[in-house]
Amino acid sequence: MPFSPSPSLSPGSARRVACIGAGVIGGGWVAHFLARGYDVTAWDPAEDAAERLHRLVTAAWPALERLGLADGASPDRLTFATTLAEAVADADFVQESAPENLELKRALLAELDVATPPGVVIASSTSGYPMTDLQTAAADPSRLVVGHPFNPPYLIPLVEVVGGTRTDPAAVTWAARFYERAGKSVLTMDRELPGFIANRLQEALWREALHMVANGEATVEDIDASITEGPGLRWAFMGPCLTFALAGGEGGMAHMFDHFGPSLKSPWTRLEAPELDRALRDAMVDGCATAAGDRTYADLVAERDQGVINILRATNRLPHPTNPNAPGSPA
Amino acid sequence: MPFSPSPSLSPGSARRVACIGAGVIGGGWVAHFLARGYDVTAWDPAEDAAERLHRLVTAAWPALERLGLADGASPDRLTFATTLAEAVADADFVQESAPENLELKRALLAELDVATPPGVVIASSTSGYPMTDLQTAAADPSRLVVGHPFNPPYLIPLVEVVGGTRTDPAAVTWAARFYERAGKSVLTMDRELPGFIANRLQEALWREALHMVANGEATVEDIDASITEGPGLRWAFMGPCLTFALAGGEGGMAHMFDHFGPSLKSPWTRLEAPELDRALRDAMVDGCATAAGDRTYADLVAERDQGVINILRATNRLPHPTNPNAPGSPA
Repeated sequence: MPFSPSPSLSPGSARRVACIGAGVIGGGWVAHFLARGYDVTAWDPAEDAAERLHRLVTAAWPALERLGLADGASPDRLTFATTLAEAVADADFVQESAPENLELKRALLAELDVATPPGVVIASSTSGYPMTDLQTAAADPSRLVVGHPFNPPYLIPLVEVVGGTRTDPAAVTWAARFYERAGKSVLTMDRELPGFIANRLQEALWREALHMVANGEATVEDIDASITEGPGLRWAFMGPCLTFALAGGEGGMAHMFDHFGPSLKSPWTRLEAPELDRALRDAMVDGCATAAGDRTYADLVAERDQGVINILRATNRLPHPTNPNAPGSPA
Repeated sequence: MPFSPSPSLSPGSARRVACIGAGVIGGGWVAHFLARGYDVTAWDPAEDAAERLHRLVTAAWPALERLGLADGASPDRLTFATTLAEAVADADFVQESAPENLELKRALLAELDVATPPGVVIASSTSGYPMTDLQTAAADPSRLVVGHPFNPPYLIPLVEVVGGTRTDPAAVTWAARFYERAGKSVLTMDRELPGFIANRLQEALWREALHMVANGEATVEDIDASITEGPGLRWAFMGPCLTFALAGGEGGMAHMFDHFGPSLKSPWTRLEAPELDRALRDAMVDGCATAAGDRTYADLVAERDQGVINILRATNRLPHPTNPNAPGSPA
């Protein structure tokens, strides 16, 4: 059964979103969709869920106002449904954010599929389960997609969109366009990968951090400071690939591999590196060239420098212009 | 031979820095020390080194002016020495940033030790070699430390400071205080670890990225976007530990492990996770509690939200207030 959206339902005409599960992530989605001007119906079976959701939206709203609300956006456009069926009955889009438990999500998605009007896409916020494993119990798996957000969903733009083997590509496309209309930055994946893309990267970093704490090699505070005072300042606006390409100087990623390539054999982390063969080297060099476009090395350096300055300013970390650290001032 | 700084040389009274090696990192150090008001003498044996260094400082200077120069700071306070001995003859501090090659750095540090006045600390910018392995050829290894910066050193505050087994702890302390006076954010390590702290973390992420490209699972642009649109926005001001603690909601890091702990067994990255035993769990929970201090969950959420908004604003990514994405607008 291929997915086919209701003829009247385009990604831009959707107005009502059902948010199933209203914890930190589900509640964050609620706040996001409300701020972007949607009607939202939430449902969560936990006893204090409505109360917690209210607290979350109330706490987030001032930030969302500062960020700029869509016309007509209001926390009053949230309805808390008493049943799952009621929550999705009029939905134009369904976002599932139940606890990260395969069996639970599989059953819940099957139940949502039964209750949701035909032609409506249902997305799961799963942090890493492939949709192929989640959609096995659903009568119509073709409209089930992953729409994986980052915390808090009302502020972090990224959402990773990917289908399972039984998802219709039209549902993936519909969801990607809908999220874009809803103000998200969408990364559409053409294949399933446990942890998707961003979580695979941040999980690698996180696991190394856990190993270091487990072995007494660094404290929680060391780890956090090493990122916020270091690489984290660049990663807010320039990704790890382009950042490392600049570390290669005017020679870019190619020089970077010539210089630091051998370090991939060093025990700098517990994760083994892949073989740095010609194909990988070319893929990285070409990928960075594509990312750079017609910007020269000097352009990129100027852009990175202004970017870091903007971040330092935004986080109140500019050095004091009158310089308490001037050489010769009292020690 | 224990390290003992010249009686007249405190970390705050140092005025002249010798930068040995003037490539991307060494040149970045030159720009940093000049901007903080130091006299800098640089040396690099490459034929076009003086010319490249001049280009680097000239390109960086407008950014450094916007960032705020120290009183009296000037690019004219740079001297390019013709020999290594001349470069360090009057130095109050030496920063070595030669290519990342163990034998080369080992020999260079021994040579620097011979030429540098007694009582002056010599720091290596090495990205990951332990000082214990670098200091073997030096007559006085006690004053040799690692001072590992991030690119560009004139903008990214972090410097990791650590000694080798033959380094005097007094030299590590002197270097840490000197870097603080010079406007850096210092992470002093009490033990050697290949890759130190930040590089172990970013190398884990980088290696996972290389695996993904090597296997056709993601492109360079996917990888960069997945960070800049997602976790990178938080990491500019809140590290991965505290960020993940907030993902646990009001239950914090403890709830996060209850909820996502089993995910550590998932193949979300090629890096195996450590056993999540009681000791590690407690270390993470306690570490996050220490990091949070007397800030409540609500305080931290408000701080993170304002932080992300500041970053979005600083990187021109605020949603348009008049909302081109409003539901109902033309698709």
